[in-house]
Amino acid sequence: MPKTVKIVRFHKTGPAEVLQFDELPLPDPGPGEVRLSVRTLGLNRAEVMFRNGQYLETPVSPSKNGYEAAGVIDAVGPDVDSSWIGKTVSTVPGTFKLNSHGVYGEVAVVPLKGIAEYPPSLSFEQGASIWMQYLTAYGALIWLAKVAKGDFVVITAASSSVGLAAIEMAKVEGAISIAVTRTAAKKAQLLKLGADHVIVTDEEDLVARINEITSGKGARVVFDPIGGPILESLAAAMAYRGIILEYGALAAEPTPYPLFTALAKGLTIRAYTLFELTADPVFTKAKQYVFDHLAPGAFRPLIDKTFPFAEIVAAHRYMESNAQVGKIVVTL
Amino acid sequence: MPKTVKIVRFHKTGPAEVLQFDELPLPDPGPGEVRLSVRTLGLNRAEVMFRNGQYLETPVSPSKNGYEAAGVIDAVGPDVDSSWIGKTVSTVPGTFKLNSHGVYGEVAVVPLKGIAEYPPSLSFEQGASIWMQYLTAYGALIWLAKVAKGDFVVITAASSSVGLAAIEMAKVEGAISIAVTRTAAKKAQLLKLGADHVIVTDEEDLVARINEITSGKGARVVFDPIGGPILESLAAAMAYRGIILEYGALAAEPTPYPLFTALAKGLTIRAYTLFELTADPVFTKAKQYVFDHLAPGAFRPLIDKTFPFAEIVAAHRYMESNAQVGKIVVTL
Repeated sequence: MPKTVKIVRFHKTGPAEVLQFDELPLPDPGPGEVRLSVRTLGLNRAEVMFRNGQYLETPVSPSKNGYEAAGVIDAVGPDVDSSWIGKTVSTVPGTFKLNSHGVYGEVAVVPLKGIAEYPPSLSFEQGASIWMQYLTAYGALIWLAKVAKGDFVVITAASSSVGLAAIEMAKVEGAISIAVTRTAAKKAQLLKLGADHVIVTDEEDLVARINEITSGKGARVVFDPIGGPILESLAAAMAYRGIILEYGALAAEPTPYPLFTALAKGLTIRAYTLFELTADPVFTKAKQYVFDHLAPGAFRPLIDKTFPFAEIVAAHRYMESNAQVGKIVVTL
Repeated sequence: MPKTVKIVRFHKTGPAEVLQFDELPLPDPGPGEVRLSVRTLGLNRAEVMFRNGQYLETPVSPSKNGYEAAGVIDAVGPDVDSSWIGKTVSTVPGTFKLNSHGVYGEVAVVPLKGIAEYPPSLSFEQGASIWMQYLTAYGALIWLAKVAKGDFVVITAASSSVGLAAIEMAKVEGAISIAVTRTAAKKAQLLKLGADHVIVTDEEDLVARINEITSGKGARVVFDPIGGPILESLAAAMAYRGIILEYGALAAEPTPYPLFTALAKGLTIRAYTLFELTADPVFTKAKQYVFDHLAPGAFRPLIDKTFPFAEIVAAHRYMESNAQVGKIVVTL
C-alpha cells in the first residue's frame, strides 16, 4: 500500500471548486471500522448541499464528503472479523458522518455497520448506486406509507436516482406511479424507465392532471424532496387520509403548510430522512428487501454518466446542472 | 306539541347578530332521524367560524347552526325504534351537517347515528358539553398519537373545552400535560384543573420552557387548534419522531411548514377533525371510552357560563371574547 492517499476534502463551503485533493497519510481503520479500497463513488444531492453548508450536518473544516462508495475491503479494525478483507462491498448512507467518514477518496474508512454486500451481478458503478436511493425509497414508501397494490404514488424530482428507485419500487408493490418532472426533456425516458404517468409541470397543471389520472380520487402517497410552494398543489391533489413524505429541502422558498386542505382531508405530512431508517431495527429488513430485488433485476440502478476521480469537481457541477437521469458515478 | 318552534338560523354570514330566531313549523324526523326537545346547547368555536363563513362546511342561506344539544327525544323517524322516545341524550358533532341539521333551536332533528346517551349523574348543561371535546381529544391523543404513560403532551388553547378535555385525558393515560395559554389570567385555574405545567406565551419563551420541562427531550405530542406562526416554535420544541396534531385553524396568519426542523427530527404533522373519527369504526370504542370516564367522574365537563336561549347572540359574542375557561352553554 502507498504511504499516502488522495482524499477529497473542502476547507470552506462554496461552489464545486472548493473540493480539493488532499494528500494524506494512509488511514488505519479504528475499532469497529473497515477500510475500503475505493473503486467507484456514487454522488448524492446531499453532498452538494453539505458542500454548500446547507445540509442537516454542518461541515467542520477541513471536511470530508461522500456517502456512497463501492470497492474492496483491504483492512479492518482491531475488533473486526478479518474475513471481511477482500470482500466487495458498498457503503450505506445514514450510518456515519460526512465530516469525519466521507468516502470521497482513494480509500474510505467507515464503521462496519456502514457497509453492505450487494449481488455480484452488479458492476462497481452500480454498486455505488444502491443504498441511498433504494433505502430512502423503502423507508418512505414501504416502511412509513405502507404502499400497496393500487395506490397512486406521486414522485417529484422523478429523474433523480431516488425518484427512479421509487418508480421501480411502486411497480414491484403493484402501485401506480405518477412521476413529476419540470420540463418535457425527460418525459420519454421516465416512461421508458417504468413510470405509469409523467406530469411535466412547465406545461401541465399538476393538480388537474393528478385528479384526471386518479379519476378525481387524488393520490394516496406523495414522495417529495423539494418542499416550497409545490406542497400546496400536492396537498390539493391528495386523497382523503393521504400521506406526504418530505425527504429533502431542495426548494429555495419557504414551505407553506396547507392547513385548510390538510384539515379537510385528514392529511399526514411526515418528514423523513434515511438516518431514521438506519437507526431503527427495520434497517436489516430494508437491506434484505433491496438485495432481494436487485439480484433478479427487479431493481436496476441506472447510471447517467461517469467521471474519472480527477474530475470530481466537474461531476459535482454536472449534478447541479440537473441534466441527469439517474446516478452520477466517479470511477477510480 | 306546538305547531311552530323557534329555530336559530342565519340568512347571511357575519357577526353574532346575524343569528336570528325563525318561527318555523314543527319539523318531523325523517327516515333514520330522531327529534330532540332541546334543553341545553353547548357552543363550539366551529359554530362561530361557520357563522363567519370560515369553516370547513360552507353555509347555504338560510342556514341552521349548532353541533351540541342535550334534551329528550320526543319523536322518531318511521324506521326508528320508538323505544328511543323519552330518552335523555345529547348530539354528537361530526355526524351531521350544520347547515341542514344544526341543533340551535327549541327542537333539533338529527340522524340516529348523531345521538348518544350519557351518564345520568350529569346535568343537562354537562350533557351538551361532552362529545365535541372528549371525542376530539380521543381521536387525536388516543387514536392517532397513541399517548402513553410518561409522554409530554403540549396542549395549546388549553382553556377551551377541548383543551381542558385533553388535560384530563392526558392525566388518565399517565401522560404529562403542558398547557399553553396566552395571558397569565387563566394560569392558576389551568393548574387547578389538572394541567401538570402551564406556559404563558405573553410572558415566557415557549421553546425554552418546553425544553426545560422535558429536560431537553422535547414534547412527543402537540395538540393544536391554532396553526400559524406558532407551529415553528412547537416544532422546535418537539422530541425526535414527535407528532403534531392540528385540529383547527384559529390563526389569522398563514402557517409555515417547518421543513428543516421536521427533517432533522422526523416529525409528523397530522391534520385531524372529528369527522374522521365519526366515520371510522373506532367511533363506537371512542364513545364508550368517554362514557366510561364520565361515569366515575374521571372526566368532568366544566361549564364556564350559561346564557338563556333568548341571549344566544350574546353567548356567541362571549365566545369570541376568549374570556372563557371551559364550555359556554345556552339553556332553554
